[in-house]
Amino acid sequence: MTKDPLIDYTLHLADNALVLGHRNSEWTGHGPILEQDIALSNIALDQIGQARYLYQYAAGLINSSTTDRGAYPAPRTGEATEDGLAYHRDGWDFKNCLLVEQDNGDWAKTILRQFFFSAYQYFFYQQLAGRKDGELAAIAEKSYKEVSYHLRWSSEWVIRLGDGTEESHRRMNDALDQLWRLTGELYTPSSYEKMLVAEGIAVDLTALQPLWEQRIADVFRQAGLTVPALGWQQTGGKEGKHTEHLGYLLAEMQFLQRAYPGNEW
Amino acid sequence: MTKDPLIDYTLHLADNALVLGHRNSEWTGHGPILEQDIALSNIALDQIGQARYLYQYAAGLINSSTTDRGAYPAPRTGEATEDGLAYHRDGWDFKNCLLVEQDNGDWAKTILRQFFFSAYQYFFYQQLAGRKDGELAAIAEKSYKEVSYHLRWSSEWVIRLGDGTEESHRRMNDALDQLWRLTGELYTPSSYEKMLVAEGIAVDLTALQPLWEQRIADVFRQAGLTVPALGWQQTGGKEGKHTEHLGYLLAEMQFLQRAYPGNEW
Repeated sequence: MTKDPLIDYTLHLADNALVLGHRNSEWTGHGPILEQDIALSNIALDQIGQARYLYQYAAGLINSSTTDRGAYPAPRTGEATEDGLAYHRDGWDFKNCLLVEQDNGDWAKTILRQFFFSAYQYFFYQQLAGRKDGELAAIAEKSYKEVSYHLRWSSEWVIRLGDGTEESHRRMNDALDQLWRLTGELYTPSSYEKMLVAEGIAVDLTALQPLWEQRIADVFRQAGLTVPALGWQQTGGKEGKHTEHLGYLLAEMQFLQRAYPGNEW
Repeated sequence: MTKDPLIDYTLHLADNALVLGHRNSEWTGHGPILEQDIALSNIALDQIGQARYLYQYAAGLINSSTTDRGAYPAPRTGEATEDGLAYHRDGWDFKNCLLVEQDNGDWAKTILRQFFFSAYQYFFYQQLAGRKDGELAAIAEKSYKEVSYHLRWSSEWVIRLGDGTEESHRRMNDALDQLWRLTGELYTPSSYEKMLVAEGIAVDLTALQPLWEQRIADVFRQAGLTVPALGWQQTGGKEGKHTEHLGYLLAEMQFLQRAYPGNEW
């Protein structure tokens, strides 16, 4: 945990985007249809692009902070950089929601994960664009347009699969069983979010929840899927307590940079 | 081997783009720098997009051909489709150059492979845009702009690595040792190319070779690299005789479609 809640908050947003972007990029060249393979790869690139802006901002905040450099994640000495924050932090430093780090599973699971997260991010960026931190507001404004497309695309797929064959409907329900318990974290504020809401910097998640629920209900109705009761929800990712999936993802994503730090070949 | 040289030629161009696009997409999330990871992923998406246009054209040609459907690759019955041509042909049906199917190796090898191929494709599409087949000319016209960027990007990296550290220079020379013997195939016309050159449809490769060599010499000079003598050259890919690398690539790329043909989840 770093000292400045704005740094933690920015890293949280960056980690969400990077981790889901990386998961989606794992599909590149393996999608069920060339056209959709390209669509999901483009979404991945949008997300990694958003992560870059956010890491750049976080690196600037860290470098200009008066707090002892050792209090911040990777590198503990020297200048913080976008690549350092992406490639040299450990799992417990990552602040992404548990939802985005889950393994891809089948196409249905990937689609449902994207839909749940895009529906969240859509309303989230809309709100963040009007908050007090100018840099975060600008990134949110730019990212919002991209996420509008992600939400439309994933909604259409949820309907297509939910309202498709018996097999595709069953797979959507299996995905729902696995992912539903991870959606509650989207609306559970972390310690740094609570601190920043009062300052008008962070988005108030309690106001977002009904908007998200309404959107899920609308799309599920068209897809012939039933919204489950809220039930038990798993949280912790935002505070660095992750599922085993993140470790595997980071091992793969960070391998090259950790094996050959700073090298370019 | 199919009966119509235009179908073979179109598949050859599509396979070049798909196979290299897939190779490049393998880097997504594993590049040495987030920024370059995104750049190479974007190049991969350009290439897979070009492949889609070319497969769509090939599928149309196959479907409107009067030759027995069994003479064409995948599926042997029913309508040919873009996805069928990408995901359901075997290695010996693929007509890509050997260069593009080589494994990624390190960043230096990936960069040099891209540079060699982009320098080829740059002059190739420029020529094809003026040839007699209207559909191929239109695809070439559109793709040429994308390839101009690929060539600029890969040229800059060749210079940066060749003229970089002792280590990066050594790695470029290692890559050159592995790839140089596969560049001659770019200028060795296949049987279907020979048939189509006379008709004004295919690009005359002998006219391309000096342009390519000049570009390689220019960039290598800036990179402090030495252009090797031509030496022994391996060919065969354009006629379906591939290195072992293509088999592994297809196994990975085609797994999902082959395991669950036509399914969308």
